[in-house]
Amino acid sequence: MRIAFLGLGIMGRPMATRLVAAGHELSVWNRTARQHIDGANTAVSPADAAKEAEVVWICVADTAAVERVVFGDDGALQSLHEGAIVVDSSTISPSATARFAERANERGVHWVDAPVTGSKIGAENGQLIFMVGGANEPIEYLDPLFKAMGKLVIHMGGTGKGQAAKLCMNLQLALIYEGFAEAFTLSQKLGVDSHKLLELIQASMVRSGAIDYKAPFVMRRDYSPNFPLRLMHKDIHLMLDVAKENRVKLPALETVDEIYELSSEEGWDDLDYAATLSLLEKWAGITPKAAK
Amino acid sequence: MRIAFLGLGIMGRPMATRLVAAGHELSVWNRTARQHIDGANTAVSPADAAKEAEVVWICVADTAAVERVVFGDDGALQSLHEGAIVVDSSTISPSATARFAERANERGVHWVDAPVTGSKIGAENGQLIFMVGGANEPIEYLDPLFKAMGKLVIHMGGTGKGQAAKLCMNLQLALIYEGFAEAFTLSQKLGVDSHKLLELIQASMVRSGAIDYKAPFVMRRDYSPNFPLRLMHKDIHLMLDVAKENRVKLPALETVDEIYELSSEEGWDDLDYAATLSLLEKWAGITPKAAK
Repeated sequence: MRIAFLGLGIMGRPMATRLVAAGHELSVWNRTARQHIDGANTAVSPADAAKEAEVVWICVADTAAVERVVFGDDGALQSLHEGAIVVDSSTISPSATARFAERANERGVHWVDAPVTGSKIGAENGQLIFMVGGANEPIEYLDPLFKAMGKLVIHMGGTGKGQAAKLCMNLQLALIYEGFAEAFTLSQKLGVDSHKLLELIQASMVRSGAIDYKAPFVMRRDYSPNFPLRLMHKDIHLMLDVAKENRVKLPALETVDEIYELSSEEGWDDLDYAATLSLLEKWAGITPKAAK
Repeated sequence: MRIAFLGLGIMGRPMATRLVAAGHELSVWNRTARQHIDGANTAVSPADAAKEAEVVWICVADTAAVERVVFGDDGALQSLHEGAIVVDSSTISPSATARFAERANERGVHWVDAPVTGSKIGAENGQLIFMVGGANEPIEYLDPLFKAMGKLVIHMGGTGKGQAAKLCMNLQLALIYEGFAEAFTLSQKLGVDSHKLLELIQASMVRSGAIDYKAPFVMRRDYSPNFPLRLMHKDIHLMLDVAKENRVKLPALETVDEIYELSSEEGWDDLDYAATLSLLEKWAGITPKAAK
């Protein structure tokens, strides 16, 4: 299939690489630093990438960036033919998704929202989970592409339902990590051995893949970005916005938002979101040995 | 072994039953309603149960109850001989545990704190995890008893470290569930199919045994108490107290405490802690079909 891939960040690059490996014809574009992927054409703009593409796959940072790469002056829609499919694997607003889909549909272009979960490692190993919103037909057409990048595709419902599901997933992720971070901070002050605490967590019902994955980094206070703090913070804002639009109160998430706000003020935006632990440790007067 | 078992609640009853099944000689006591366990003697007081016991195993509701059953007028210490071991599987304050252990030690009685995780089902199947604090010698002596009730014993450190670890575990449990409850509430307002959301959770890194176990009950809004709300609320207070004693700030837990406070005011103390979801649903104007 001829595919334009827009956005070669932490997730986009391994996803595009897997599509190339599966034999598809890719034209890739990235906003910052002209990036190259072996076996793919490097485009100068989204519009350039989208020339003759059947599918435009997007993996960019936020709602504004999706709007820009699709509907902007050099946007993909400038060169897309009727019947093409835009697939958005960014995590953005469900209501903006509905508006974008409508604008694309007016031009005869399908819109599928398909955010992912599974982190960078999942992207590299083709083990992503896609949460998909949109019509059946384009989604079925995309099946070989989903299979090249992921282990599971769940069709959540109509347009925007993939994004809605994604926000519900990251909400849980944020609170699972916050629970771990608060427990981990308290345990240190109470003199509980951190390795034994982890052994306990991993033997128990509070075990999650999220903490299994994060704990070794936390143990060495390695906050190199896997899921950058600024992106989780952006997702939290999306959740709170959509909650407000829908009159839902999310009290613990609001509190977690404040922690991200303060972490951002500390200048940790480009660290992993796990760095929010440092704030709790700082408040508790803990100076971890391995901390930067 | 001759064992006095004090407290036959949701956890205590199946634990005592397993000790009897393993061939131990039990004398059991319960504060409310004289309860009988086949094959065990039923005592009229903790002191009565503890007569000639080598081990007193406690599984009661809170710090005050532990103090009463051990140090009260009819408390176990009245009849315990030197060298006996008190094992406390209640979840209580780590600092009170240190004081209790000291008072017991003055009488030549060992104290082992051994709170459990694994819920009612784990207790019934002998699959509990014990988080143990205390000296090596009594803990090794207790090994066959731990094995009769649990699948794993982690010796966390000295007196009180078992309780400290337990609080860190339940802190995570409270936040994992709150994250699920907030996500689940939001998902309903966004029109996400609940069964698909669960499928997604269970395929992803946010999956936990805690939510696997709770979700089917939540789906039918069955809040019959497995882990009663008032006990989780009590544990949250213990966490916040110990956090304050140790100058630790736990912002998300403080917010969750407010939700338990309000749930308690709604009269849900004797429901499962999963009922806190109802508060979020109420605020969002959701009337779930299966809700009571």
